[in-house]
Amino acid sequence: MSIKLNQTCDMHVHLRDGAMCKLVTPTIEQGGIETVYIMPNLQPPVTTKEQVIKYKKTLTQLSPNTQFLMSLYLCKDLTPELVEDCAKLNLIHGIKCYPAGVTTNSTAGVDPNDFSLFYPIFKVMEQNNLVLNLHGEKPSTKDSNITVLNAEEKFLPALEKLHKDFPNLKIVLEHCTTAKAIETIEKINKGITDPKDVKVAASITVHHLFITVDDWAGNPINFCKPVAKLPTDKSALIEAAISGKPYFIFGSDSAPHPVENKSKFIGVSAGIFTQSHALQLLAEIFDVHNALNNLNKFVSLNPTAFYNVKRHDDCKIELIKRKNVIPNKLTDGNITVVPFMAGTELKWEINWL
Amino acid sequence: MSIKLNQTCDMHVHLRDGAMCKLVTPTIEQGGIETVYIMPNLQPPVTTKEQVIKYKKTLTQLSPNTQFLMSLYLCKDLTPELVEDCAKLNLIHGIKCYPAGVTTNSTAGVDPNDFSLFYPIFKVMEQNNLVLNLHGEKPSTKDSNITVLNAEEKFLPALEKLHKDFPNLKIVLEHCTTAKAIETIEKINKGITDPKDVKVAASITVHHLFITVDDWAGNPINFCKPVAKLPTDKSALIEAAISGKPYFIFGSDSAPHPVENKSKFIGVSAGIFTQSHALQLLAEIFDVHNALNNLNKFVSLNPTAFYNVKRHDDCKIELIKRKNVIPNKLTDGNITVVPFMAGTELKWEINWL
Repeated sequence: MSIKLNQTCDMHVHLRDGAMCKLVTPTIEQGGIETVYIMPNLQPPVTTKEQVIKYKKTLTQLSPNTQFLMSLYLCKDLTPELVEDCAKLNLIHGIKCYPAGVTTNSTAGVDPNDFSLFYPIFKVMEQNNLVLNLHGEKPSTKDSNITVLNAEEKFLPALEKLHKDFPNLKIVLEHCTTAKAIETIEKINKGITDPKDVKVAASITVHHLFITVDDWAGNPINFCKPVAKLPTDKSALIEAAISGKPYFIFGSDSAPHPVENKSKFIGVSAGIFTQSHALQLLAEIFDVHNALNNLNKFVSLNPTAFYNVKRHDDCKIELIKRKNVIPNKLTDGNITVVPFMAGTELKWEINWL
Repeated sequence: MSIKLNQTCDMHVHLRDGAMCKLVTPTIEQGGIETVYIMPNLQPPVTTKEQVIKYKKTLTQLSPNTQFLMSLYLCKDLTPELVEDCAKLNLIHGIKCYPAGVTTNSTAGVDPNDFSLFYPIFKVMEQNNLVLNLHGEKPSTKDSNITVLNAEEKFLPALEKLHKDFPNLKIVLEHCTTAKAIETIEKINKGITDPKDVKVAASITVHHLFITVDDWAGNPINFCKPVAKLPTDKSALIEAAISGKPYFIFGSDSAPHPVENKSKFIGVSAGIFTQSHALQLLAEIFDVHNALNNLNKFVSLNPTAFYNVKRHDDCKIELIKRKNVIPNKLTDGNITVVPFMAGTELKWEINWL
């Protein structure tokens, strides 16, 4: 049994820089993905034209067959002029917004209680068809009742307000983890069936289709932000991903960390590495739910339409139902990354045509 | 400023065996605690008279000034005859019940959906005034909607049924973590003000008065079972602990693990070590909430009354408001244990009178 896919996309990818970048970038192609959207949370974050150009060049050298869609990191250093310039030069496809302090390398991020500071930038983005990628979590504060469990739900009104204030701005609520988030996305997209009409999309990772709070409690390898939540949330995410609806798109949020940073008694790095086998795991979930016919929408048709990526017509990727195993580690001898579900059996294999 | 306490009790303590036991047992006295209730989840668990006698002897040799109240591990190996025998010989004060698989060394535990198997034992316990210590969590199963977050709440009906079936059996719902648990304990104890009338008590740890889910997400040192939950739950626990009500008693659930077992990317051991400074942290919480006058009830009057422990009349422990620091580690050179809130400043100090 096999299934062919159009241009495969992973619209939320962390490739880091330096040695880690060299190690993980080739796994995009190995994992059967042709087009990736690159997150800009390097240290320092990607906030200039020069950084975008340099980062894209580095990535392209590491993986010449992969299409890299670049982004800037939303912060006070950005100006409407810079954003317009980058858009006209076709350097970026969007801008990533991190609430300050909620996840890996987000200290330079914004206060989601006060987006108005960035309204001039959003205006330029809307005019130039750039995508705003939202890490949708409210930061916890001592006196609020916000925790990692409800931080996403508490952010949803801010998403709705942004959409109301910029109805033509393309927004992605990244790595949704809750039934509440899915409900909000469904509400915003009520009646929309044509991919061209989608303004607010949601990206869904593969790991959130597999795990709940029980899987990261005591297992830091499965700790990521936003954290995986309840079984009911997981069910809602699966239902959304397999639905084929044009506003649900695949973004793995694959986020590699050296194994030492996942094996600490305090301050474990947030992030799960799935790059090398995300598509295979997705196929498994879609298969189990009798929705393999919608996989191409989730990983190809919906994301290319939303990001306005020119799509080639031939199929380069085939998934074959054949047993294989997730390696225990990815390593260059110095850095070791432990993949999600390391050592477990995969039911599908990637074949480049 | 200082405060004197009657016989200080910590009614939920894990001392392990071997080298770890040697390392942590002296910290009971160092921490200003006179009487401890010992949990029986060794490997293998304490299920015979001989094991109880041997374990108590070991502990007493390590810390001659500490009073050790012993317990058995509820499992199919126990018989009503053995329990009665232990009670008559005054070897044990109670029996600990672990749902199978929910925490450290609980694999030999019971199925909380089917307590009826143990009713003959509960009958003997009731007749002999032994205490049943419940780890109140329903185990997660694949097809249920139970996770570490609601496992305690899902257990509460089983507690109520046990109390209904054995109205004179003394039961402790150990290490409460939720507002729902506190509500249930309050409901069961409605109208009770005399310690002698309490049949169902709740023990509360010190760490659950300090942390929420945000503190263990990414910080395995703070991972324990039951996990710390929401800020609202923490508030309910603080309110219960400082209330002075006779059915709330102190049990630290101090549970040491070698630091290597807290620094793993998968399979982190559940448990927080607070033995050495629990009383000092309690004083801080009670002080902040203007409830220092109730601390003696929580750590002395309530637990001694409930466990029917003969209380000496003099005060041996004084807490003095004087700054000191929680050590970064407890070590014998081979085993290292990192204490809860290691390196942070304490506001109260222990003084043995």
